[in-house]
Amino acid sequence: MPQLRLSEREYACRRDKILEVLGTRDIIGLVLFSPNNVSYFSRFGFIATERPIAYVLTAKKSVLLVPHLEIEHAHEFALVDEVIHYPEYPGERHPMEFLKELLTGLGLSNAKIGVDSDGYGRLYGYRGPKVSELLPDAEVITVVDDVEYLQMINSEEELNLIRESARWGNLAHTYLQEYCKVGVSETEISMRASFDATQAMVRTLGPEYRPLSWGGSNASAGFRGQIGKASALPHAMTSNARLRAGDVLVTGAGASVWGYGSELERTMVMGQPSPEQARFFDLMLQAQTLALDAIKPGIPCADVDRAVRAFFREHHLEPHWRHHTGHAKSTLVHEAPFLDIGDDRTIEVGMVFTVEPGIYIPEFAGFRHSDTVAVTPDGIEMITYYPRDLESLTIPI
Amino acid sequence: MPQLRLSEREYACRRDKILEVLGTRDIIGLVLFSPNNVSYFSRFGFIATERPIAYVLTAKKSVLLVPHLEIEHAHEFALVDEVIHYPEYPGERHPMEFLKELLTGLGLSNAKIGVDSDGYGRLYGYRGPKVSELLPDAEVITVVDDVEYLQMINSEEELNLIRESARWGNLAHTYLQEYCKVGVSETEISMRASFDATQAMVRTLGPEYRPLSWGGSNASAGFRGQIGKASALPHAMTSNARLRAGDVLVTGAGASVWGYGSELERTMVMGQPSPEQARFFDLMLQAQTLALDAIKPGIPCADVDRAVRAFFREHHLEPHWRHHTGHAKSTLVHEAPFLDIGDDRTIEVGMVFTVEPGIYIPEFAGFRHSDTVAVTPDGIEMITYYPRDLESLTIPI
Repeated sequence: MPQLRLSEREYACRRDKILEVLGTRDIIGLVLFSPNNVSYFSRFGFIATERPIAYVLTAKKSVLLVPHLEIEHAHEFALVDEVIHYPEYPGERHPMEFLKELLTGLGLSNAKIGVDSDGYGRLYGYRGPKVSELLPDAEVITVVDDVEYLQMINSEEELNLIRESARWGNLAHTYLQEYCKVGVSETEISMRASFDATQAMVRTLGPEYRPLSWGGSNASAGFRGQIGKASALPHAMTSNARLRAGDVLVTGAGASVWGYGSELERTMVMGQPSPEQARFFDLMLQAQTLALDAIKPGIPCADVDRAVRAFFREHHLEPHWRHHTGHAKSTLVHEAPFLDIGDDRTIEVGMVFTVEPGIYIPEFAGFRHSDTVAVTPDGIEMITYYPRDLESLTIPI
Repeated sequence: MPQLRLSEREYACRRDKILEVLGTRDIIGLVLFSPNNVSYFSRFGFIATERPIAYVLTAKKSVLLVPHLEIEHAHEFALVDEVIHYPEYPGERHPMEFLKELLTGLGLSNAKIGVDSDGYGRLYGYRGPKVSELLPDAEVITVVDDVEYLQMINSEEELNLIRESARWGNLAHTYLQEYCKVGVSETEISMRASFDATQAMVRTLGPEYRPLSWGGSNASAGFRGQIGKASALPHAMTSNARLRAGDVLVTGAGASVWGYGSELERTMVMGQPSPEQARFFDLMLQAQTLALDAIKPGIPCADVDRAVRAFFREHHLEPHWRHHTGHAKSTLVHEAPFLDIGDDRTIEVGMVFTVEPGIYIPEFAGFRHSDTVAVTPDGIEMITYYPRDLESLTIPI
């Protein structure tokens, strides 16, 4: 049976690790507000709104502070010792007053406390005090780097979820390619492919499957507007264009499995590629292959991007460069570290990256594949596995 | 022809208004980072990542700072005097250095500057300095309240977009209700309804239609897990449950039109409602009607929620109360102000609210309708218009 969720042991291990890291700096309490960080340690996935949710961890106890409307939901899913609640935000008493009481009760009012951010953000009209204002005698230290570092290194269980995601992204993309026809709109192709892949996925995986992300249980594939000339805009937005003969298409596909995702993007051509299209496609493929070959543990992230940039210079592609080679990928859209000349962090075993150097020619077309890879002791494991060659990606018209 | 976008005059009017408000406090420059705020003044909608995008406005000039990959996209859509760019983040030189140069060039290095937040957040691994650190001689003032206040009052053009959104949310919900059958999964019903409504919408509205939101061009309707007993969890997550006879369902539907949305939620019952289901449904409907009747310009938001809470007390429903009566709604999921006893802001003409008091009985069911209404001089205009009565919302099985 496929692995579709993380074990409770995995969460316990994360809590032990962060307490150990913080303990070396005498930080004895941790307060997290970001939904991704809260669920990373507590397993509680939720819809973030103007109502703050805070996760508090000490060596003795873990507590989740939620608004009233999340009590039963939190009791069902959160791996914490206690769930406490405030009635509502704005409400008559500010949620941070409840947090202050909680932290004081845990003996943290004049301790060193680690936070992912000093207070809840201004999400959806929320306003409120900082943790450092709640507890003026505490020393409040931002430890988001430590939390993010833990998140960068994926365990075998996490890798399994990303692999499962890639499988359904692959199916969604297969349908997407099959449904590409001249005259049909991006919305129709994309929604049909996403529907068919999701239906296959939820039937295959059964009731054990949980997306654990807000968007619902979806495998998806689409174009996000990168069709024809607009394929030259790396971050185009959906325009509901209809496919035409000769269009270059840049796609994207993935699926959410217990909050984990993968990224699969392909450049496809509607009909026989022109020599110019084939030339840029080939250069893009060479650049991606070169980047894939460059990744290995122990080197700086920057080295991978540097190799790609050298290739761009060598082939006079600099006017067509628009972005770095890739980014880490697990539970968010993008994550650190980045395969970018400006990122000197070391590539480590267990990191997962997208590899996606792109070539963009305004008013003509854009060319980008993105694959998701895991770093192994010897190099990489390709997690996404869709064909990368032009012949496989040429749509007969 | 339906109105599907905001006029350039609308954007100019917003810029004039904020400059006027800030001018009274000698604030001569505005710097915005939040995607919603950037697009509110510049029309530029984009995918927010680790790469900061900043919008800068003075009486003389408006400038957008973007990463290289957004240059052509920004030139095409942004209503600004100039687009400047940095190569990439992390990159070799920090994006905020480019912002510092820009602000200095605009003569703002020792001026009063308004910001929506003092620096770009920690989104997707981004790290960087605050604006106040970039320009130590400037006086950096958070003016997010002023920006949000402008956003709260919707013009006739904005109301038209919200009305257009409601029309397609209504169609999506109609399909959703039609497709509800015993044994069919929430994913299948939801995706099928969203697909059919979106296809009708994009064909009806034609190429002029732009969702202007990242998620693509979608009308959508679904359950987000609020099915059967789980309907008692106000913010349940998708579990891909299959519908059963006797289930209470709580739905949600909407559509994105030029970034504007609407909220339509309904409580439905699979088969003849039990007396207990009918009783709670009726109480919920009474509470919602009472809230709708209470809204009018000139009173505090709190009064609406107070009326609902009194109704809850009177009918001994306090154990089943979970959240406030509603929130403002235009371009985000939730917005301020809130129909909540803790929000004393005054209801004004042009504000748009959801009205959605809910009744939740753990291990039994939840009951909530949500309608979107605009405040008029006399009271409200109902923007959503789906039937609210139990008979219309009973699914024959």
